Formats: sequence, structure tokens, C-alpha cells
Amino acid sequence: MKHKLSLLPALLFFSIAVIAQRPPSISSPEVHPDHSITFTYFSRKAQKVTLNGEFLKATVALTKDTSGIWSVTVPPVKPDIYPYSFTVDSVQIADPNNTHIFANERFKRSIVDVPGDQPLIHSLQNVPHGKVSYRYYKSGTLGTTRQLLVYTPPGFKANGKTKYPVLYLIHGGSDTEETWTKVGRANLIADNLIAQGKAKPMIIVMPYGNVRPSPMPDFTKDMVADIVPFIDANYPVIMESKGRAVAGFSVGGGQTLNIGLTNTDKFAYICSYAPFTTTEEFQKNFANWSPDANKINSQLKLFTISVGTDDFLFESVKKNMAMFEDKKIKLKSYIVPGGHTWMNCKHYLATTLQELFN
Amino acid sequence: MKHKLSLLPALLFFSIAVIAQRPPSISSPEVHPDHSITFTYFSRKAQKVTLNGEFLKATVALTKDTSGIWSVTVPPVKPDIYPYSFTVDSVQIADPNNTHIFANERFKRSIVDVPGDQPLIHSLQNVPHGKVSYRYYKSGTLGTTRQLLVYTPPGFKANGKTKYPVLYLIHGGSDTEETWTKVGRANLIADNLIAQGKAKPMIIVMPYGNVRPSPMPDFTKDMVADIVPFIDANYPVIMESKGRAVAGFSVGGGQTLNIGLTNTDKFAYICSYAPFTTTEEFQKNFANWSPDANKINSQLKLFTISVGTDDFLFESVKKNMAMFEDKKIKLKSYIVPGGHTWMNCKHYLATTLQELFN
Repeated sequence: MKHKLSLLPALLFFSIAVIAQRPPSISSPEVHPDHSITFTYFSRKAQKVTLNGEFLKATVALTKDTSGIWSVTVPPVKPDIYPYSFTVDSVQIADPNNTHIFANERFKRSIVDVPGDQPLIHSLQNVPHGKVSYRYYKSGTLGTTRQLLVYTPPGFKANGKTKYPVLYLIHGGSDTEETWTKVGRANLIADNLIAQGKAKPMIIVMPYGNVRPSPMPDFTKDMVADIVPFIDANYPVIMESKGRAVAGFSVGGGQTLNIGLTNTDKFAYICSYAPFTTTEEFQKNFANWSPDANKINSQLKLFTISVGTDDFLFESVKKNMAMFEDKKIKLKSYIVPGGHTWMNCKHYLATTLQELFN
Repeated sequence: MKHKLSLLPALLFFSIAVIAQRPPSISSPEVHPDHSITFTYFSRKAQKVTLNGEFLKATVALTKDTSGIWSVTVPPVKPDIYPYSFTVDSVQIADPNNTHIFANERFKRSIVDVPGDQPLIHSLQNVPHGKVSYRYYKSGTLGTTRQLLVYTPPGFKANGKTKYPVLYLIHGGSDTEETWTKVGRANLIADNLIAQGKAKPMIIVMPYGNVRPSPMPDFTKDMVADIVPFIDANYPVIMESKGRAVAGFSVGGGQTLNIGLTNTDKFAYICSYAPFTTTEEFQKNFANWSPDANKINSQLKLFTISVGTDDFLFESVKKNMAMFEDKKIKLKSYIVPGGHTWMNCKHYLATTLQELFN
């Protein structure tokens, strides 16, 4: 991980002065060359500390040394980025010594990056990098100012001579506008695919998709009436459906279907990742849906749904795929191993990004 | 706070399916119109939950209802942004229901924003907003690729016809490159002061300042040899000392003195906030320092040191002020109430930002 600590007397002095009960300097997690990982936690008082991680089938216990340092080394895991947390007695926590936090509204977990022997598609590589900008836009629909993130590709020219296509990319329920970069590494995946000539230089807009109580009709309005016009006004973009894609994961995958399929004049590319489609709203929108399949098929250049066979939504996603087939909507399905995870989600993005704007 | 939750059956279903042991939907913290605040935490198993906050003189206990919901309401506090955490039995944690986390490598705390009756200088106001971009640069000095954040002001033109001055703004020890925006709200302070005509439109560069084991000589080199050239090459900036300022807090305040005073040909503005100057390196650089005061005073347009009277570094900072005075270096000192906190730090920035590039 990036922010390793060493025993620096001066900083320790500073730390002790500022925060009482300062633990000893700990580096956690430590990923070893063989892809095994050591996790470490400090507590003199805890009775029991366990590790929960998406690379584990079951939680494992950490053991304590005489100084209060708890640790465990797990055997080599498949290179990827994984969420994990500790449970200290009854309290689930993010790893206090790891700055890489899973951006989410409901749980506090950390992420560990296990690099591959060959660089993985989401890794920081020696290629030109785009940038990710945090911006505010006014949502007339929601009556508030919201934040969104905008990835602009390497070599981006703001002068308007080049017009860029735009992917609107939506996080899962209870995630935030930062989850696609901090956990999904969408920016690095795009950097790497663009460098390899496998994806077109594009702008990627990552809004905050949570709208309560109803994630769908209001966010669809926000997207069409507020977010797209904000991007059209502030970036040199292709202002036609052939220059716009919408994609999203989980609840965001459901929002993607709702936004895309009700606005095929505005988005020619729809990529839904493990969509959560059992909300009442979704049912209402699609249960008695009588689409003009010919028209939609001629408007869309790409419509994909990706899902893992171990995804708890697999059966529901399959039903939706059958529904679209039944209604004669042309659909490309990606059924792969894996569960309802951000490991899979990164894979869905890396696959479909190569099919956009061709 | 931005991300409030309500009881949405569909999302709850989703949540339960994904994460076992899901607590009930909780909104914490809740700031009331009279500036009192209710903090809430869910645990059926905890024996004791306390609140630690920089608005409190001592920790306060939360009380549990029969369903396992712990809460406490603290009396009205002075409007500001404060760090806080819970201690659940023996475990200190960030508030799991609050996405606003204090960006730091060592501790996990949350932040609560208590708005003023009149908008505070760090608040999101109805003014034009700049943007904050996350970028990578190659550090030849440190032999790695590092991230930095770049604030560009509202109406920023990349076409090169306007040349902007640049403030290089450094966080405290164990903070990260995100602390100045996520806790210090440097971008919103700049937006508001620029809108009021009190600060010049400027670029603000927020690097990651931690270098181990030695925060000073190596980061000074990184700043001069890598960061400044990266900005000069990628932004339309004034490439002279009169267009460059360096500022920083705590360990970053010490780095600021080291960077600025050893490079007065490159930075005409030096603003040090509650500097931590008792490192061996700092002592070595300044103990036997024989500056050419006339030259430095003619090169610098502004040299300030800010500190609070309750700061644990107050005596050490006063000694440094006396040292500079003794060496005839022109210094403007800001001594104000308050401690070694980000509440004070925001205030130092808001004050000195108005004096830059005039």
C-alpha cells in the first residue's frame, strides 16, 4: 500500500502529543511477493480479533503477541483488489493503519491491492495518465448542489477542436461518487486500455447516484435534465446519442437500464453490470413494458448485461435477460464466474469499455 | 451531512443480502438548528460507547435503548467542522454511518459540519466553483509515481492566455494529499474568497508531503525538482517567484519553512501554519543558519507564521519567531486563540489566502 510508516522519532513525538493512546507504528496490510498477505492490528485490551475479507471463505483469527500486536498471514491469494475488515470483539472496523478505504455510506472496510506478476488492468502503470476532477453541479431535479467526478483522458484538449464521447458510470447502492475510482479504479483501467489502443479516449462521468427514497425515477431525471447538460456545457463532447454511454453496477445497474432504455435517443450504449432490478420502481417500469423493439435496436449500438454465476442476483438477472429477449431487444450477455463483488465489477468495466464508441 | 439514509425496503433487502449483520438504518450525526448534535451508533453487544470530539472538553457516554441503538445529544457547539470518533468498549472507530472521514494515515475519525447562521467561509455557497483534479506525477527524487491534487479556480482558462499564480499547500504529518480538501475545505475557502473579490484567482497544488524517514530534505527536493516543474509543464502559470507561494500545517508548516527559506528565488510567499520545527532535520537546517537577511527580505513579498495560543507547539513556534526576528528576517505573525487543530488551520488559510499575489 502507498502510505507505509516507519519508526520516525520526530513524527512519533508529534503523534503522541496530538493523540493520546497512540499505538506503535504498524504497517498493515503487507503483501508479500508470493501474494500471501500479513494483516496487523494493535490492541492491548481486545479479547478477540478476526479478519473478514472477500478473498476468504471464512473469517480467520489474528493472534496476539505479548506487546498487544495482533497479526495473521493468509496464504497466497489471486492478484486483485479486495475489501476486508477486522472484527475487534464485537466491533467491525476498517484497518486503522490503511488509508485505502472502501468509499461507502453504510460500512467501513479497507481495501488491499495484491499486484499480479504481470500488471493487472487496474494497476498504476507507466503510461500516460488522465485526471479525475471533483466538481459541483446544480441539480434542479433534486433541488441541491451535488458532487460528481469527471475523468478526462491522457492528452485531453479543452480547446473544443476534439469532441469526446462520454461514459456515464454509476456506482452501487450505498456506494458514493468516489467508489468507481477508489475501489473500481475506473481511471486506471481507462488509462491502460487507452494506452494499449483497446479503448477510445473518452470522458467518464461518475455521479453520486443515491436518491432517497426512490433511486430510479428521480435519478433518471437528474441524469437527463441536470448531469448530461452540465457535461455538455462544460466539456467538448459529442452531443448525440452515438457519443454517450451509460453503465452502472448493482443498484446502479438497475438505474442504467432505466436511464438507458427510456432514453435510447440520448444514449446509444447501455452496459448494465449485475443489475439489481427487484425494486418496485423497476418492476413498475418494466413489468408492462411494450417497447418498439425495432426502433430501440436501431437506436442502440450496444446493450450488454454482465453477471457472475455466483452473484446473489444471478437468477434475477437471468430472468431480466429472458425478458429482454422475449421482447426482441438485442442484448449481449456476459456470464462469467464470480459473485456480486467489485472484483467482478472492474472486470465488467474493462470488458465493455473496449466496445464503446467503436 | 450529505448522505442521509431512510428506510427504503428495496435497498434494505439489497443490503441484507450483501452484508450479514446489517444494522438498522441510522442517520448520524444529525446537526439540529440550534447547533446541538445527535450522534447515534448501533450495537447490541457493546457494553460501553463514548464520543470523543474536538468540540468537547471530555468524552461523553452514549446511552442504549432496548433495540441496541446508542445515542447522545451534545449541547449547541460553535459552528465549524470538527473531527470526532466513537470508542466502542476499547475500540476507537470512525462513525460507520458518516461518509465524511478525516483523511489520515494513522487514525480513523469522522468529521461533522455544523453550519453557521451566516455561511462560514469554508461552506458550500451559491458561488462559481473551481474544480479539484487528482493527478499523478513522476517523482525522480523519490523514484516513484505520486498523486497530487490541483485546484483550478472558477472560470479557469487552459488556453494559456491567462497565467495563474500557484499556491503549494502541504498537509500535516500523517495526513494525506486529500486532507486539505476533505477536512480543510481549501477549495471552498478559495471559491468563496475569490467570489468576494478577497483572493486572487489562483491554482492550489496539494501534494502528498510524507516522505519517510526524513520529511524535509527529500520533500524539499521533490517539490523543487519534480512538483513545481510538473505544474509549470501542465498548467498556464506564472513561472517566477512572484507567482509562487508555499504554505503548510504542522509538519507541513515545518516543510514550508524549509522549502521556502532555502528557495526564496522560487517562492516569494511563505505562509507557515503552526509549524512543527523540532525535528532534527529542521534544527540542523536552521540552528547555525546565517541568512543574508537583506536579500531574503527583498526577495520575499510575504512571510507569515500563524499559531494558536492553546497549540501544544505554541512555545516552540514563538522561539522560532524570535529566531527569525533575531536574524532580521521580516515576519508577519498571526497569534490567535485555539489549538493545534484543523479548525484553526482553515482559519490560517482563509486569512493568508487574502494576502497572496497582491
